[in-house]
Amino acid sequence: MRILILGGDGYLGWPTAMYFSHRGHDVTVVDNYFRRNACTELDVGMLYPLPTLQERAKIWHELTGHEIKVVIGDLTDPEIMRSLFNGRVVYQWAVNPEFTGIPDTVMHYAEQPSAPYSLLNYKYANITLSNNLLVTNNLVFALRDLAPEAHVVHIGTMGEYGTPNIDIEEGWLEIEHKGRKDKFLFPRQAGSLYHTTKIMDTDLMWFGVRMWNLRITDLMQGPVYGIETDESVIDDRLKTIFNYDEIFGTVVNRFITQAIVGYPLTVYGKGGQTRGYLNIKDTLQCVDKSAQTPARPGELRIFNQIMETFSVLELAELTRTVGRKHGHEVHIKSIDNPRKEAEEHYYNPAYQGLQDIGVTPHFLTEEVMEGMFRVVGKYKDNIRKDVIFRGVKW
Amino acid sequence: MRILILGGDGYLGWPTAMYFSHRGHDVTVVDNYFRRNACTELDVGMLYPLPTLQERAKIWHELTGHEIKVVIGDLTDPEIMRSLFNGRVVYQWAVNPEFTGIPDTVMHYAEQPSAPYSLLNYKYANITLSNNLLVTNNLVFALRDLAPEAHVVHIGTMGEYGTPNIDIEEGWLEIEHKGRKDKFLFPRQAGSLYHTTKIMDTDLMWFGVRMWNLRITDLMQGPVYGIETDESVIDDRLKTIFNYDEIFGTVVNRFITQAIVGYPLTVYGKGGQTRGYLNIKDTLQCVDKSAQTPARPGELRIFNQIMETFSVLELAELTRTVGRKHGHEVHIKSIDNPRKEAEEHYYNPAYQGLQDIGVTPHFLTEEVMEGMFRVVGKYKDNIRKDVIFRGVKW
Repeated sequence: MRILILGGDGYLGWPTAMYFSHRGHDVTVVDNYFRRNACTELDVGMLYPLPTLQERAKIWHELTGHEIKVVIGDLTDPEIMRSLFNGRVVYQWAVNPEFTGIPDTVMHYAEQPSAPYSLLNYKYANITLSNNLLVTNNLVFALRDLAPEAHVVHIGTMGEYGTPNIDIEEGWLEIEHKGRKDKFLFPRQAGSLYHTTKIMDTDLMWFGVRMWNLRITDLMQGPVYGIETDESVIDDRLKTIFNYDEIFGTVVNRFITQAIVGYPLTVYGKGGQTRGYLNIKDTLQCVDKSAQTPARPGELRIFNQIMETFSVLELAELTRTVGRKHGHEVHIKSIDNPRKEAEEHYYNPAYQGLQDIGVTPHFLTEEVMEGMFRVVGKYKDNIRKDVIFRGVKW
Repeated sequence: MRILILGGDGYLGWPTAMYFSHRGHDVTVVDNYFRRNACTELDVGMLYPLPTLQERAKIWHELTGHEIKVVIGDLTDPEIMRSLFNGRVVYQWAVNPEFTGIPDTVMHYAEQPSAPYSLLNYKYANITLSNNLLVTNNLVFALRDLAPEAHVVHIGTMGEYGTPNIDIEEGWLEIEHKGRKDKFLFPRQAGSLYHTTKIMDTDLMWFGVRMWNLRITDLMQGPVYGIETDESVIDDRLKTIFNYDEIFGTVVNRFITQAIVGYPLTVYGKGGQTRGYLNIKDTLQCVDKSAQTPARPGELRIFNQIMETFSVLELAELTRTVGRKHGHEVHIKSIDNPRKEAEEHYYNPAYQGLQDIGVTPHFLTEEVMEGMFRVVGKYKDNIRKDVIFRGVKW
């Protein structure tokens, strides 16, 4: 496959690039370092320093013989987006930029992915809105105009659904009302501005699919945990970005880091917030299987990309159990919930679709968590306690 | 009331400003001339030239003694939006800019309002997205930070709902699924990018209402027709902007203009597209009654703002009937539908809510249409046949 990865420098983007490159696909990654720059601007701390994307591609090439093409550019600029489909070079910067043809698969990860970031203040809110919607819209129009056959695999979020009092289906719901029926996108109502932009992404893509027969798979993903993938273990310099702070660190990754440095596991309110989770290795499986069985023209295919559900308190308790085995003093501390969200709620999402197309789940066992403790523990001296908690409220 | 009108130069904004000013309210209008500039850029033609907003306010003051404050500024800039709530002057330009206090009512009309404009090409698509969402988001954050008590009256669109195969309720729907129930925003799925941005507006405002107890009335308006209001008849120079082209002209206004210059009434396909319509005078009634009975803190109140429904073919036939009475040769011509939309569909929207709070509908009778023929006819020599049809497709 000829694969274009938008947001190829991110937590999921870079492992995805290596995964497909390793399997012999023609991979181009695009990124504008939005995430890294935000990490610097907000001083969030990183578990270990990262080579640039260009450097990582070079290391990857030296170690495996596979080439990952790198384009550094801002995809909110429609001309940069379109250059990836028509070969007219307007990149900001590129390594091996020769155009080998229209991609047949586009992985769209190029989003500001943090709820707290989106609500730091009105400026970050606008940045989140502009970035996420303009990138998605530029992609939709580039597909319409230049690559209507290409299949998009987009990472959405389970947070689009919120926590409704009815069972959550995979993307769609048939509604009967006053004796008549129709099928709609499952009702969406999110708990942060970031999550709201993902609802809007889905709306934009659904518009493109209905109007122009685009082919899109939208994966409603839960919070991802994990560090290593089969490709990253080749060399430490190939590890993906790992944040452990409140803004960019996902909850399991953050809890493990907190446990290692003796920072109490902060649970918001009662900790009954239940969500679906998955291992980073399963993200790779999910996008792989989705790419192998593409959506049909005119189909917006939606899967719920989670493998199991936990409450925050359950995750804290698991972290405490595993942490204590590793000799860490781990405490759980409930703090006033800084967010407006239900601390106890019904939560029953369907998530069979991805397994039906061949995904085999990894689960968050004590063993899996122990593996993460070992990796994070190696970098213990890099962890800055002072940047973990930021007190972002909404 | 202290009333702030965002988009106060537009087809609805300016009549709204006069309406409330006439009734003794303290009115400030804000606009960046987006619509006028777009009319020039796209050369869409106008029925008559308009004084600037500043000049209109001056004329209004001379004729009535009432003052309308004018701010010229781009509300996608959050600092300009915030200046209207905190009095720190960062306007681009203003007339009588003294700050008399936090508005208690905000009328939000500041949107790119055209479906064909939003789909001219990818650049206009991005302009539409950025303008509509940043203005709404800036408003939400300004309210949160500076004026949580203010009541917003926003003009949404019936187009947010699309044409579902079930009855359209006023904004909300209780859904029963597998034996459990919850209440959600009524499913939305729009037929243009512009209409999709209005879905997103509703999502943004609903987020603000849930998180920060904002008070918002969102009026799902159908296409508006009409020219004169009780205030505009005072002087020809106070007339609102009137477009008769495919991009900015609403269908009834456009048909009447076409009939007058002998341009066939263009019906897309079978002409069975059914929508709800209202007179511009009823828009004023609706926002007035909404302002007088504000939404409660934490309430997103939604009304469907239409007074009756017609198919496009019915409107064309009515225009032909009235036009012929006025001695015009009127022909109806069916053309291939340039849009992806159902030409025959179920359509049964509820729209009782506004009448329940005191709105008395005007209906599109032959007499009402005759009145419009008379006004438009006065400006017959200004009508440019060549700009009516633009051939925008999607």
